[in-house]
Formats: sequence, C-alpha cells, structure tokens
Amino acid sequence: MLKLHGMSASGNCHKVRMLLSHLQIPYIWQEVDVVNGETRTEPFLAMNPVGQVPTLEIEPGKYLAESNAILIYLAEGSPFIPVDNYLRAQMLGWMFYEQYSHEPYVAVARFICKFLPVDHLRRNELPRLHERGNSALAVMQQHLASRTFFVGEQYSLADIALYAYTHCAEEGGFTLQNYPAVTTWLQRIEEQPGFVPMTV
Amino acid sequence: MLKLHGMSASGNCHKVRMLLSHLQIPYIWQEVDVVNGETRTEPFLAMNPVGQVPTLEIEPGKYLAESNAILIYLAEGSPFIPVDNYLRAQMLGWMFYEQYSHEPYVAVARFICKFLPVDHLRRNELPRLHERGNSALAVMQQHLASRTFFVGEQYSLADIALYAYTHCAEEGGFTLQNYPAVTTWLQRIEEQPGFVPMTV
Repeated sequence: MLKLHGMSASGNCHKVRMLLSHLQIPYIWQEVDVVNGETRTEPFLAMNPVGQVPTLEIEPGKYLAESNAILIYLAEGSPFIPVDNYLRAQMLGWMFYEQYSHEPYVAVARFICKFLPVDHLRRNELPRLHERGNSALAVMQQHLASRTFFVGEQYSLADIALYAYTHCAEEGGFTLQNYPAVTTWLQRIEEQPGFVPMTV
Repeated sequence: MLKLHGMSASGNCHKVRMLLSHLQIPYIWQEVDVVNGETRTEPFLAMNPVGQVPTLEIEPGKYLAESNAILIYLAEGSPFIPVDNYLRAQMLGWMFYEQYSHEPYVAVARFICKFLPVDHLRRNELPRLHERGNSALAVMQQHLASRTFFVGEQYSLADIALYAYTHCAEEGGFTLQNYPAVTTWLQRIEEQPGFVPMTV
C-alpha cells in the first residue's frame, strides 16, 4: 500500500491527501516531525535527499518527491488531468506557477505567522512576502473572474495545487475578501466529491 | 510557426531554445526587453498575465507560460520524456526541484551579480542566496556522483531544466569546481546532438 510521509499542517501534503481521497486510493499516513528536524535525519534523507515532505513511498526503496510531481504520478489517466495537450500544458503551467510565484510567499508568510514566536527575526520578511503573495493572489483573481476552474472549466490538479495554501492564506496575514473570485473558487473546490479538509 | 518571446540572457529561455534545437523544430525568436520593463506592458501581460519570459506563442491568441511546462508540451512523445511512469514522475520531481530549490537562488544570485550595479542594495541578499544555492548544487553533486543523467541514465527534460542556470552559476559567484560530478554532467550535455549554447 502507498505510504505518504507528511506533516498534517503542510499545504503541500494536503494536496496529495486531497487527490488520494478524490481518487479513493487507500494509503498509510506517516506523520513527520518537520519542526523538530526529522526531515534532516539520515533515514529521512535516504528516502528524499532534499529533505522535504511530502515524500511518497510507493514501495520500500521506491520514493517520489515534490508534491506536484506526486500529484501528476497519482492522477495519470484520471479526469484530474485534461486529455487535450494544450490544456494539460496550461495545467502544468499553473502548477509551476504555484511552486515559483505563490508558495514561496503565501506559504512562507503562513509558516512565519503560525509556527514561529511572535518576536522572531523572520517577521521582518513579512512585508515583502505580503507584497509578492498579494501579486500572486491578484493573478488568480483576474484569471478566475471569468472561469469556474483554472483550466478548461474542469476541476484539475492545477486547482488542487493552488487550493492548498490559498485556503489558509489568512493564517499568514492575507485578506481573502479582497479576492472574491478566489473565495468563490475555494468554496467550489470544497464542494467536490471526496474533498477532505486540512486536519490542522 | 511557433514564436518564442524571450530574453537571450535568461536560463529559463535557454532551456526552451535547447529543446527546440534538439527536436529540430523551427521557430521565430522574439527578444523581449525585460530589463526595461517590457514584460510589465499591456501587450505583454495580455499574452502572459504573470509577466514572465519565456512565453511560447503557439499561434496568435494561444500562449503558454512557465519554462518547464513549455518543455513538457514541446517534448511530448519524444525521447526527452521517459515512457515509464515512475521515471517520468522522477523527471517531473527534478523539474519542480529546479524551480523551487535551485532557480530562486542560483539564478537570482547571477541576476544580481550580472545585471545590477555593484553598489546595489540587493547585493545584501547574496550570502543567503549562496548558502541556499550551494545546498542545491550539493544535492545535484550527490545525485550525479553515481549517474550519467538525472533520471534513468537517459538525457531528459530534467537535465535540460537543470542545465540552464547551473552552467552559468559562476556568474553568480558559485564555484562549480567544488561539484565535479556536476561539471562532468554539464560537459556531457554540451556534447548532445543539437545542443545550442546560451547566446549571451
């Protein structure tokens, strides 16, 4: 059976849990103590040399890293990946966008606000993270203003990838009310069959 | 004919030029003046709302963003994407790694060193960028120490994506000599049929 090594409060791990539930694929969840350095230990680095969660264990000795690559692996041949190659490339584009232009700001601001002490030096990063994160949310708002989902009017991996850290962006100091098409889209995702919420 | 909107000195654009040359696909190159803000103009944002190069124009009105999504679109069905689904997922994993753990440090350090004045405030970012960038290069060194290419002993999109900013990392103050398996791998890529160097 698949084993997912992850952290309950991680959006990157939540993505994978969402998809596994949508696809009704059974799996074992293995909680990893990221905050206390478990991803930097030798046994963990032997599974994933980059030291990140989620790490999917397909079978002992056979691992996959990077949340969005795991999503694509699990969803191959399912309705969560468009068949048309141009739509599929757009889906991939939004998934790279999520990791490059969204997660490093929206998720990192949340990490600082939620997991670090209130007097931590990294709070100095917040103004820049909010500026960049709000740019990312504004791009999403503009795109979703005339669409139900990111690609081809169909719920796909692009939506799952972008849902993960957007739905909890307020924990990082963002105001989702400023992005009405985004909040409607978040609700639409939460109504999908098999949707599971973040557990923390 | 395909039209590639890009900047000659951009590694993200170089990736796409490399693949187009390997695949012998003809295209028109459209140089974009990123440094003087052309990607923030209305005509450019109409093609790509995120305002980034490369942007691939498949036909007028039909665009693709995100370098690695463009690579996958162009390479579908070619030997640059492994047929085996586990190998393909590993290839995708390295491509997400490139955009998340490598480019934001290795490419940004190069941008600061190569394109900004020597007294620019952003030079203060360099120590952190070098620390993170060296971690990324160390992961590559470890992986390549026992392999010829990133995935399945076969030249794939993972290699093209990671080549782009690694081969010019010294322009950002990194020392490639510290990563001998990486330098051998760079040479191996430069010997591939159809390889084209960066033009700047």
